[in-house]
Amino acid sequence: MTSRLALAATSSLLALLSGCAGAPGADAAGERWAIAIHGGAGTMNPNAPRARLRAYEDAMAAALALGQGMIADGAAALDVCEAVVRSMEDNPLFNAGKGAVFNEQGEHELDASIMDGATMRCGAVASVRTVRHPITLARKVMTGTRHVLLAGDGAEKFADVAGVERVENSFFDTDGRRRSLQRLLRDRERTGSLAPSDRRYDYGTVGCVALDRAGRLAAATSTGGMTGKKWGRVGDTPVLGAGNYADGYAAISCTGTGEEFIRHGVARAVTARMEFGDETLQQAAAALVHDVLQPGDGGLVAVDRDGNIAAPFNSTGMYRATASWREAARVAIFHDE
Amino acid sequence: MTSRLALAATSSLLALLSGCAGAPGADAAGERWAIAIHGGAGTMNPNAPRARLRAYEDAMAAALALGQGMIADGAAALDVCEAVVRSMEDNPLFNAGKGAVFNEQGEHELDASIMDGATMRCGAVASVRTVRHPITLARKVMTGTRHVLLAGDGAEKFADVAGVERVENSFFDTDGRRRSLQRLLRDRERTGSLAPSDRRYDYGTVGCVALDRAGRLAAATSTGGMTGKKWGRVGDTPVLGAGNYADGYAAISCTGTGEEFIRHGVARAVTARMEFGDETLQQAAAALVHDVLQPGDGGLVAVDRDGNIAAPFNSTGMYRATASWREAARVAIFHDE
Repeated sequence: MTSRLALAATSSLLALLSGCAGAPGADAAGERWAIAIHGGAGTMNPNAPRARLRAYEDAMAAALALGQGMIADGAAALDVCEAVVRSMEDNPLFNAGKGAVFNEQGEHELDASIMDGATMRCGAVASVRTVRHPITLARKVMTGTRHVLLAGDGAEKFADVAGVERVENSFFDTDGRRRSLQRLLRDRERTGSLAPSDRRYDYGTVGCVALDRAGRLAAATSTGGMTGKKWGRVGDTPVLGAGNYADGYAAISCTGTGEEFIRHGVARAVTARMEFGDETLQQAAAALVHDVLQPGDGGLVAVDRDGNIAAPFNSTGMYRATASWREAARVAIFHDE
Repeated sequence: MTSRLALAATSSLLALLSGCAGAPGADAAGERWAIAIHGGAGTMNPNAPRARLRAYEDAMAAALALGQGMIADGAAALDVCEAVVRSMEDNPLFNAGKGAVFNEQGEHELDASIMDGATMRCGAVASVRTVRHPITLARKVMTGTRHVLLAGDGAEKFADVAGVERVENSFFDTDGRRRSLQRLLRDRERTGSLAPSDRRYDYGTVGCVALDRAGRLAAATSTGGMTGKKWGRVGDTPVLGAGNYADGYAAISCTGTGEEFIRHGVARAVTARMEFGDETLQQAAAALVHDVLQPGDGGLVAVDRDGNIAAPFNSTGMYRATASWREAARVAIFHDE
């Protein structure tokens, strides 16, 4: 457990959790389980106000607690991942759902995907503007259509058919994200750069991967994309195999410069290295983040079918929280934690 | 060479091609090159009118000739793939560009992607309605932005910035595709099925993969998607790693029920099996098409860095054409050819 979490409240919460999962009296399901979540990778500042870092830590601990509790109760990994990501979509601290970044036009376009490793079924949505919980719409695409990926207006029409809550686009507004857009637009004007974004603004995604006590793996990822994005830019989050993937070997959720995760098919490559290269989860995940990707690109969280966890990243920080049948709950932001 | 091609005109064309590439007097570039193209996989009827099958064979032979000629002239694989796919987008026989299928609203929504294996750069567009050559727009995304995937209206705005030709959506109309939509809508009404499409209508994509004489691999794929698609459905074509991929090992273009290719990350898995599992191109491609995918899902064309070709499919037919430094030009539709 990280030193940053030597906080009475959070510690108590984690202690409670450690006690409740896998404790004597638990049902007869498998002992091995794992959960890992992230709230985005990027250039966090270790010298940021303590209260701000603590707000993220508390949010990560709460999301982990939600998922860990569900696993202890015997929930399916798919349900756990959807619920945890929904909770993070509702939290304005994270760039997903409420609190999503603004695109160049001062609006929000959201992407999400979900995958059930036990069945290889999956669903994704891209560029939705009025769906409160994109991860839930992605799951409805998976269960309610023969399709995997729905985009734009069509996806929103499907939301109505599927009974998924819609909101005004301004529902997602937050003052902090608006200031980020204004800063970016000023930078663009000052530098004259046509580059659609600056690395400082790239990041922010939420994701959850889980192995449940019945041995099922699942992954879910949701994002508002890049601040100031234009031209209908879509990142790696709804690209199954790039930013999100689950099969019988592992479940992976990525965060970072989405384009690089697409180029290298990162999430799919983790499981391929395990299946065809006999690499461990840790080896496969570390190879992709540290050898294939470039410093600053981001990171990922992953769990495998044996309940191992990997959470490598090559950026300054990655909001992350993990727990498993053999590792106590842990929340961290920077490398040295 | 297939028996179906015992046609004077086509045979002459192929003989001409066989003579021009790799012939004495060719420049000093590498001897190994390969090209494979497809025009879609599906439930073709071997008993269709001979003239109709011949029209497809001639079109495939012409597209192959274009690409093979460029390779002989020393063109880059990326240029070859773009040019070949553009030519197929212009041909109303194929479900890409002019001749694209209609969605449920009687309109066209086009997807495309392109990838340069030598640099891992890639570009893709999804759900564009007014871009004459989606493959060229995908290439502009690759070269003119920091992004990989642009969708919908935003992608069309970028087309104007990039100087890519736009047309009215009705430009893509053809009578045959309109009849297919009408038949599908009648079927839906009659059966009451909510399934967004029937397998008979699923297929149709064009693609080209190439190894040029400088050893560079590239892949390009373009499609109009599924007849009668709704809700902004996007298939595997713009999902890099699913329907299209190229790296230093191989270049792959897929066609079939896109959702299955996304679930299994098929294109990326071909190169992963080669890199991490030491499989040959033929082994990797065959394993995916015959062991991982289900009968009827479709197929793929692939070339590797040594100039090997694979073109497996598990549907009744796949329009395909191949040629390499050691294999004569060949056009085929069915399994026994």
